[in-house]
Amino acid sequence: MENELYFLLTQVRETSPLVQNITNYVVMNNTANALLALGASPIMVHSEEELEEVLSFCNALVINIGTLSKQWAENMVKAAFLANNLGKPWILDPVGAGISSLRNETLKKLLELKPTVIRGNASEIMSLQTFSSKGKGVDSVESSSSALIAGKQLNKDYGSIVCISGEIDYVISKNEITEVANGSPMMTKVTGLGCTSTAIIAAFLGLAKDPYQEAVAGVAITSLAGELAASISKGPGSLQLNLYDTLFNLSKEQISENLKLNRYANPS
Amino acid sequence: MENELYFLLTQVRETSPLVQNITNYVVMNNTANALLALGASPIMVHSEEELEEVLSFCNALVINIGTLSKQWAENMVKAAFLANNLGKPWILDPVGAGISSLRNETLKKLLELKPTVIRGNASEIMSLQTFSSKGKGVDSVESSSSALIAGKQLNKDYGSIVCISGEIDYVISKNEITEVANGSPMMTKVTGLGCTSTAIIAAFLGLAKDPYQEAVAGVAITSLAGELAASISKGPGSLQLNLYDTLFNLSKEQISENLKLNRYANPS
Amino acid sequence: MENELYFLLTQVRETSPLVQNITNYVVMNNTANALLALGASPIMVHSEEELEEVLSFCNALVINIGTLSKQWAENMVKAAFLANNLGKPWILDPVGAGISSLRNETLKKLLELKPTVIRGNASEIMSLQTFSSKGKGVDSVESSSSALIAGKQLNKDYGSIVCISGEIDYVISKNEITEVANGSPMMTKVTGLGCTSTAIIAAFLGLAKDPYQEAVAGVAITSLAGELAASISKGPGSLQLNLYDTLFNLSKEQISENLKLNRYANPS
Repeated sequence: MENELYFLLTQVRETSPLVQNITNYVVMNNTANALLALGASPIMVHSEEELEEVLSFCNALVINIGTLSKQWAENMVKAAFLANNLGKPWILDPVGAGISSLRNETLKKLLELKPTVIRGNASEIMSLQTFSSKGKGVDSVESSSSALIAGKQLNKDYGSIVCISGEIDYVISKNEITEVANGSPMMTKVTGLGCTSTAIIAAFLGLAKDPYQEAVAGVAITSLAGELAASISKGPGSLQLNLYDTLFNLSKEQISENLKLNRYANPS
Repeated sequence: MENELYFLLTQVRETSPLVQNITNYVVMNNTANALLALGASPIMVHSEEELEEVLSFCNALVINIGTLSKQWAENMVKAAFLANNLGKPWILDPVGAGISSLRNETLKKLLELKPTVIRGNASEIMSLQTFSSKGKGVDSVESSSSALIAGKQLNKDYGSIVCISGEIDYVISKNEITEVANGSPMMTKVTGLGCTSTAIIAAFLGLAKDPYQEAVAGVAITSLAGELAASISKGPGSLQLNLYDTLFNLSKEQISENLKLNRYANPS
Repeated sequence: MENELYFLLTQVRETSPLVQNITNYVVMNNTANALLALGASPIMVHSEEELEEVLSFCNALVINIGTLSKQWAENMVKAAFLANNLGKPWILDPVGAGISSLRNETLKKLLELKPTVIRGNASEIMSLQTFSSKGKGVDSVESSSSALIAGKQLNKDYGSIVCISGEIDYVISKNEITEVANGSPMMTKVTGLGCTSTAIIAAFLGLAKDPYQEAVAGVAITSLAGELAASISKGPGSLQLNLYDTLFNLSKEQISENLKLNRYANPS
């Protein structure tokens, strides 16, 4: 798997997939920088008038509902619809799922459009089942194991690959589950590293060969780079900077020496 | 006071107050990161439809008018009104007070709703009296002593605790004035460190015990962390990063060795 | 030229031109920080209601169409019109020129208002001629030499000084062309360093003496600081931080030892 992962990373660096992001104001800069450091090309366009033209030449789409408003919600639903029509992979980041009706109504519409991938923390993934929240705002309080059950159900309901971020990350398809045990608790002290994972998954989806392998690669590269960056960081300020530098320089050796990945059949 | 301050910091780290931010686009990422590094939980929601639901489970609210528009101004007034109804502490950051009619009209409405705390630089605090500006855009050109007089009057008029950032920071209540002599001139070369102070004050207000002590703690921790960060920084880029790391690691010893705080009765 | 450049930098540091920015969400924080590190004062106001009041006391205006919407497009055209009426220099950053009708229509209106300066990458400058795009999203794929021809034509058509960023930067007026050979390929891996160049040019334009010299200074300082920052950076995360520190500390010696600038008559 290390070799496959590094091969996909090389593909991203060589082909620079163009990732269109409709994302929240808080992380726009950071996810653009993470995509550039990885070797992909970000584009951040949100206005209704531009969606179709821009999506037509992009390789993947991020929809992240972080700082939602009614107008942006409409544009997101339209963008997801267009991505499906154009055959472009897209990923949904359900930031703050369950904390408001606007969020829930928007998420229901987006789920009906069957995202290629859904990535959230445990609380968000569980809220996509119940449309209520036990999270702490946008932070997770749920256990991975309960989220895993919810993630499997989400996969059954919508066919989406489901990625759950946490101490152990899970990537769930109909047939397989992959666990990634990389990462660092300090990553929760930098805003938007979940959103960064989503953007990085989208870059891999832009390769458009095998969405499940690509989702696994995005999750693993983010958590691995975060772990390596955290190991040389005094605090979250350094971590943010070191994450970009690590993504930019990540080598085959670093991947093969540090990757903690476990893959098994989805028993459900 | 050092012990009290460290105790409040420990409380924030242990209980992670959830701070809702309606703030400007320029600083959203930075204030979220500062809140996380401190140990609090940020949430950034601005749309009218979500305000009531989100405020109901938050511990404190930031209203920062930096990149104002008519729509956001309405949402801010609504949010302040809801915070009062829900008994949640809220802080007003009057960025650029006096530079436009939209800002002045919005600030008048917000002041009528009696913010728990108001924090600004000297020019902004003085502009809340005159609704004209002698500032340089959003930067201050006024002396601390003139601002102190304006701050006392603001406290009399609206009952708000008034925090003035500058070479010496002031925290004014009806009965007391606290001066904080920590900080660094380099802090004015990083955008939005005033906004960061506001967010950090809000995190302490989220403890909801004693707003005056909490406001003092927020002001003192920001200026102290800024001073310590600046002392190891070659320039404003390093300072921004080191500020997060310093907030994350700030110890009892660092506080007791470096805090320059002076407290006296408000003679007015 | 080194002396002249350092003199202009000293002028910016001493007089702190106030630069009004109507720019995209992705780079707001970064361009504000770059302006502060340089010694200028940023202000970021976009709402229609505030434009006239704010422009009246600013020294220069940035219009950057990065995250465009219909409403913002209208405000940009209005701001450019007001800047002309008030005799304030303004710079257009045509991010993503050619990728959508909204962008093209907005750019046509802005070009008719004859920007003092236009700055873009090679693809963007060429798209201002054809209003189609061969760029990769917002990144350039065009050669400098083709862009130079397009830049000269743009200068003829609208009288604007045209700056083209790339391996070699060009600054084109009716009579002169300046080439700046400073910079680093790593600069393309940090989002918005082109936008940063635009903001820095605006700071120099705020001196309001000689727009061509000021545009050259802005381009040269950005590329030189970027090169020096990159030379001590492990990756794009470090580069962003080191760029602010370098701008803050940039000395006469660093300029005279590293500047690679070539100036000649515009033969056209």
